[in-house]
Amino acid sequence: MQGCAFVDGHYVAPEDAKISVFDWGFLHSDATYDVAHVWQGRFFRLDDHLDRFEASLRALRLDPGLTRAQMRQVMHGCVQRAGLRDAYVELLCTRGVPAAGSRDPRTCRNRFMAFAIPFVWIADPDAQKRGLDLVVGSQQRIAAGSVDPRVKNYHWLDFVMGLFQAYDRGGDTVVLLDAAGHVTEGPGFNVFAVLGRGADARIVTPARGVLEGVSRRTMIELAHGMGLPVEVRDLALAELRSADEIFLSSTGGGAIAVHRLDGVPIGGRAAGNFGAVTRQMQAAYWALHDDPRLTEPVRGAD
Amino acid sequence: MQGCAFVDGHYVAPEDAKISVFDWGFLHSDATYDVAHVWQGRFFRLDDHLDRFEASLRALRLDPGLTRAQMRQVMHGCVQRAGLRDAYVELLCTRGVPAAGSRDPRTCRNRFMAFAIPFVWIADPDAQKRGLDLVVGSQQRIAAGSVDPRVKNYHWLDFVMGLFQAYDRGGDTVVLLDAAGHVTEGPGFNVFAVLGRGADARIVTPARGVLEGVSRRTMIELAHGMGLPVEVRDLALAELRSADEIFLSSTGGGAIAVHRLDGVPIGGRAAGNFGAVTRQMQAAYWALHDDPRLTEPVRGAD
Repeated sequence: MQGCAFVDGHYVAPEDAKISVFDWGFLHSDATYDVAHVWQGRFFRLDDHLDRFEASLRALRLDPGLTRAQMRQVMHGCVQRAGLRDAYVELLCTRGVPAAGSRDPRTCRNRFMAFAIPFVWIADPDAQKRGLDLVVGSQQRIAAGSVDPRVKNYHWLDFVMGLFQAYDRGGDTVVLLDAAGHVTEGPGFNVFAVLGRGADARIVTPARGVLEGVSRRTMIELAHGMGLPVEVRDLALAELRSADEIFLSSTGGGAIAVHRLDGVPIGGRAAGNFGAVTRQMQAAYWALHDDPRLTEPVRGAD
Repeated sequence: MQGCAFVDGHYVAPEDAKISVFDWGFLHSDATYDVAHVWQGRFFRLDDHLDRFEASLRALRLDPGLTRAQMRQVMHGCVQRAGLRDAYVELLCTRGVPAAGSRDPRTCRNRFMAFAIPFVWIADPDAQKRGLDLVVGSQQRIAAGSVDPRVKNYHWLDFVMGLFQAYDRGGDTVVLLDAAGHVTEGPGFNVFAVLGRGADARIVTPARGVLEGVSRRTMIELAHGMGLPVEVRDLALAELRSADEIFLSSTGGGAIAVHRLDGVPIGGRAAGNFGAVTRQMQAAYWALHDDPRLTEPVRGAD
């Protein structure tokens, strides 16, 4: 396995990146994380990811024991040591192991880790080329009142069981609704509906019950730049079904086209024949990766 | 750290019980588990725990790669090797690590683990002697429509943040409500309200949105044996507040008395002065630990 991890203050090979079974990060999924990507040797929007990670740490009362500058350095260090040009770079913090016999999380020393591995696409390249088959899962997305989705977390069983459901139906991935039947998000991505065509086109993405994705923000900013109206609001499933285009946003690939929703071709298009907005978003997203305001080159190791 | 773990087919010391950071059991909390206890050298209701664990495995489409007899043998082996008379014995199965570059859980080889550590009480002995200070958390318990609470899982951030809230208010632990305001459960325990006194006494425990705890079942069976009416149904918070007694049920201590709910003494009692039903349940629960129909002695190692 190619890559490099940072564990207990040391850079190690991925096969040596392990955590204690007794860490609440595992036993209680009591952890937060963030994922940035490196494309052609440059981190994309790293400060936005670090901002969100720091907000998540505060929300969960976790202390990684490193400064922001140190965390940034570790991310660079992992990529540099792994020798990767295109990478998926995760940083995370777990609660740690409580004192013997205790169930009190305040007795834990929190633990910071990071790793860089080869870039992981949200879906396999063939599926991306034809556009994904998206399935609406019967699982309800974990409610924001239970676990705040803006605090990036590992509570994914709703998604995982949704993935199995999607596979059973011949789909590639899943999108979940909230208790009110509104569209939320999928495993690793936000959802955008393009309603209307041409001069009437506008894009809608759910406002609530979702991760405020860095790629989601990028899509919104790109749409603003194109003069394309953006509505961040509740999105009913019926609206999603009626969309002329659907695309997903993810650090794992930018704007990913959806071909079918529950087996029905979106906008009546053939596989691989993406709508104009999706194509514009894809081109604009990757073009941003040359922008020095949003990117920084991977530094040499410390 | 005293204890013994079983990892990758080998018995190891607790400090060597580690899992890969890349295991979805960690990265997506894609795992299930169960916990049995050993008291004075005997497992309590081990078959009930194995029944539930096997049902959880099926629900999550996990294959531990061991037969039930082998899992039982590993649990015995961990306790025997750890040399524990009173133990907390957990068995678990994670999704495993997907194929390189894949996000498809079907490419994972599932992993079984187990460990035995000294018996862990749900609360520290002093708090148990006075009765716990229970706080009603503002977090909503993760809904059954998102993650089935009957499939024992590590999705605990609602509980962990609830614990912090309880500590902030001077409490010992937390109970969460569902979206409709009904009482659900707390971190590691089910909840029982004793409504009425003497001949009018009956016990109520939530029917839905909770783990169907082995200790919960034990309490229900004990109440039946005592001729005490049991109602398994929705429990409103107002009813819980009006209870004459409240107790919690857990593998980590049996029937645990609650002294105060949000700072208000239950049944107007002083600390340490438990109600009659709670005291009966405690005595009857521990008496069961001599019953050969419900217990089995820890075997010598294989």
